[in-house]
Amino acid sequence: MSVLSPPAPTSFQTATALFTTGADTPREFLERALERLAETEPRLRAFAALDLPRARMAADAATARWRAGHPRSPVDGMPVGLKDVIDVAGLPTGAGSPALEGFRPWHDSAAAHALRLAGAAIVGKTTTTELALTYPPDTRNPHDPARTPGGSSSGSAAAVGAGILPAALGTQAIGSVLRPASFCGTYGFKPTFGALNRGGTRDFHSQSCLGVLAASLADVWATAGAIATRAGGDPGHRALRTGEFPAPAAPRAVALLETEGWPAVTTEAGAALDQFLSRTGVRVLTRHNHPALAALETLLAGALDRARQIINHESRWLVDALADRDPHGLSPTLLDRVDRIRSLTDDDYAALLDWRTSLRAAYEQVLRDADVAVTLSAPGPAPVGLSTTGDAALTVPASLLAVPALSLPVFTVDGLPLGLQLLGTPHRDPHLVAIASWAEEVTRPNA
Amino acid sequence: MSVLSPPAPTSFQTATALFTTGADTPREFLERALERLAETEPRLRAFAALDLPRARMAADAATARWRAGHPRSPVDGMPVGLKDVIDVAGLPTGAGSPALEGFRPWHDSAAAHALRLAGAAIVGKTTTTELALTYPPDTRNPHDPARTPGGSSSGSAAAVGAGILPAALGTQAIGSVLRPASFCGTYGFKPTFGALNRGGTRDFHSQSCLGVLAASLADVWATAGAIATRAGGDPGHRALRTGEFPAPAAPRAVALLETEGWPAVTTEAGAALDQFLSRTGVRVLTRHNHPALAALETLLAGALDRARQIINHESRWLVDALADRDPHGLSPTLLDRVDRIRSLTDDDYAALLDWRTSLRAAYEQVLRDADVAVTLSAPGPAPVGLSTTGDAALTVPASLLAVPALSLPVFTVDGLPLGLQLLGTPHRDPHLVAIASWAEEVTRPNA
Repeated sequence: MSVLSPPAPTSFQTATALFTTGADTPREFLERALERLAETEPRLRAFAALDLPRARMAADAATARWRAGHPRSPVDGMPVGLKDVIDVAGLPTGAGSPALEGFRPWHDSAAAHALRLAGAAIVGKTTTTELALTYPPDTRNPHDPARTPGGSSSGSAAAVGAGILPAALGTQAIGSVLRPASFCGTYGFKPTFGALNRGGTRDFHSQSCLGVLAASLADVWATAGAIATRAGGDPGHRALRTGEFPAPAAPRAVALLETEGWPAVTTEAGAALDQFLSRTGVRVLTRHNHPALAALETLLAGALDRARQIINHESRWLVDALADRDPHGLSPTLLDRVDRIRSLTDDDYAALLDWRTSLRAAYEQVLRDADVAVTLSAPGPAPVGLSTTGDAALTVPASLLAVPALSLPVFTVDGLPLGLQLLGTPHRDPHLVAIASWAEEVTRPNA
Repeated sequence: MSVLSPPAPTSFQTATALFTTGADTPREFLERALERLAETEPRLRAFAALDLPRARMAADAATARWRAGHPRSPVDGMPVGLKDVIDVAGLPTGAGSPALEGFRPWHDSAAAHALRLAGAAIVGKTTTTELALTYPPDTRNPHDPARTPGGSSSGSAAAVGAGILPAALGTQAIGSVLRPASFCGTYGFKPTFGALNRGGTRDFHSQSCLGVLAASLADVWATAGAIATRAGGDPGHRALRTGEFPAPAAPRAVALLETEGWPAVTTEAGAALDQFLSRTGVRVLTRHNHPALAALETLLAGALDRARQIINHESRWLVDALADRDPHGLSPTLLDRVDRIRSLTDDDYAALLDWRTSLRAAYEQVLRDADVAVTLSAPGPAPVGLSTTGDAALTVPASLLAVPALSLPVFTVDGLPLGLQLLGTPHRDPHLVAIASWAEEVTRPNA
């Protein structure tokens, strides 16, 4: 079935126990990652740039620290990739755009600097769609190279899904972390809006944030925590709440989100989610038994198009400024997308922001009776073809609502991965991780 | 008295009437600006970089459009300078820091792109303190080269105050527009937080914004409007409300703000403000007759130090990332400033944000009875010396409150300029400009 034959993604947090005994080292962990990279990258095309010498130096330094019993952090020596919209000193930031090809940032972004301080080994930059918005890179899905890895955090998802990296950073304004995580069989985490510092990135939208794609929930937690404790959140926002890995916790009730994109859910995908819900033994709120949830779903009608209007309006100056510099460096798709919203007035934009605020109030009503909302991360597995990154309708609510969300790679549909999506309570990201641990237990065959 | 002998700042909006008749042209206006530049810059040192050929080309194109009766905007052909934290394609962005010397941005910022679209002639980048935070540039006050021009928008204030430019852009997180405007005898405008797009700038703080320093209120309004209508506001924020220049409007009452810094106000400066207030004929609320105003002033105790903690905490990653690259490229002052807040926890930061939110609620209570708050823009004229940029205590409330604020160059104290500061209602920037027009009328000798 799988041409690239990915092994299960390789957790770094599982390996760290061996680092303290000396049975394994961060340098050996890195070398295994680089072997897998050499084997898969010619077809996978997950990386926009590599910096192996520096990664090896970082892994060696971490090896010595683990041996001495003083690692800097749980991610000390962890091989990591950063989506190519996040500046890393010494590497170009192309942001998936020919118009930015050759641009070299002056210094690290907040996230890259935090990861270095935590001892992580930055392997390279991972591919993204054009400006993290449209035109897809030539990156393949590790489970089937004829299929999209999803986007816009395409390379991060592919590199983790292919078993190269235990963790990679992405960004999400619409569905750019949760969707590729679902398609590539990785964990995907989009924190509460503002919870991870975006300084030094090309991610500037009013509903986007840094996220983590990783091999396990523990890797997600360790990576996000390493950034939050060292670089904080966005200006004006609390940082992600960190600490010990949260113990599994069952929710009082779950709210089943059947929003735009739900009609496209395949029979098999729907059955997988149904089976999960029936196994939980927890009360399921739906539009049929919970008026506030029905009201939220009604408000969310047309959410994908409205979210795109918000993002496109906020991107307009950048697209225009880049077009001014290099009119042939932008795709017709992107130029058309921006042209189509050029007539949007500031009043229209303000109305969209007001609508978004109303969604958040409606979601709060749902949270009075449920601790988590659940849906699929996509209507089905990754579609065949590389010209689009798949349907983002099911992931856009988490971005609009500014809530923490996770995609868990617990379903297999038609032999391909599909994610269970969990949406939590703003600023209670640890609580969402606790519920996700519980959800994983529920989905285990012997549970 | 004045060694650089500045003429009155030269309004572009006054000149445009002559452009339509052909009695004057944007190119001739620019050449006069460049003559004044050549004459003053060797001592003034207001510019970090110049691009005269492109400015002349822009002025020529505008000259043709005015002649044809089709200017692109009220600022078509206007010579303008941009604080050196705002990216302009083709010019370096040094941000007043040796650690950034040589950095060339890839494309225009939102504001630079908007000004170009509006036809403005970008003359160059204006000096700023180190990262717009600390170490002052060697820029002089146009009214006395032994005195500071204020900061951090030092060069923008000096260039307008010296009669070179009719308008220049600055940024303000503490007092970086209003204070230098006051010291250099220019108008200074800091809009409602978020009202002018900061995309492509090094201004990223949770209470900072782009601002305009200009020769007249009309120049302020035309410049800010040219940006807002073409580049909008920050992501997630309404753009500045624009339109026709607001007609003068008297407020119902004014609230006199006597906050931190007030005890330092010189006798002459205080007398100038008193005289203004007595001439208005409008009711003056004070801490003695208005409990809500007294409550706001109490809440504002220690505001300057708290605001600096917020800004320093938000700057930490950047200072650290730059120090990582070039440990000798940052001043001891800046490193010390950041070191001093290194123990600040996320809970401490969140408490500061909560305090700031409480200030805004307290200010709203004051606005129930007053349309505007007034104070001085500084305790007195620019102090002698270039090692500091003067006292920012009186300007920090406007930044913390996220409200629109103006400094009007209507006072002369000891032969030097001093600004009257007006603080308005969030999102009602045009209303503040209307009140400022009224205030100017009140201060005119024959009023």
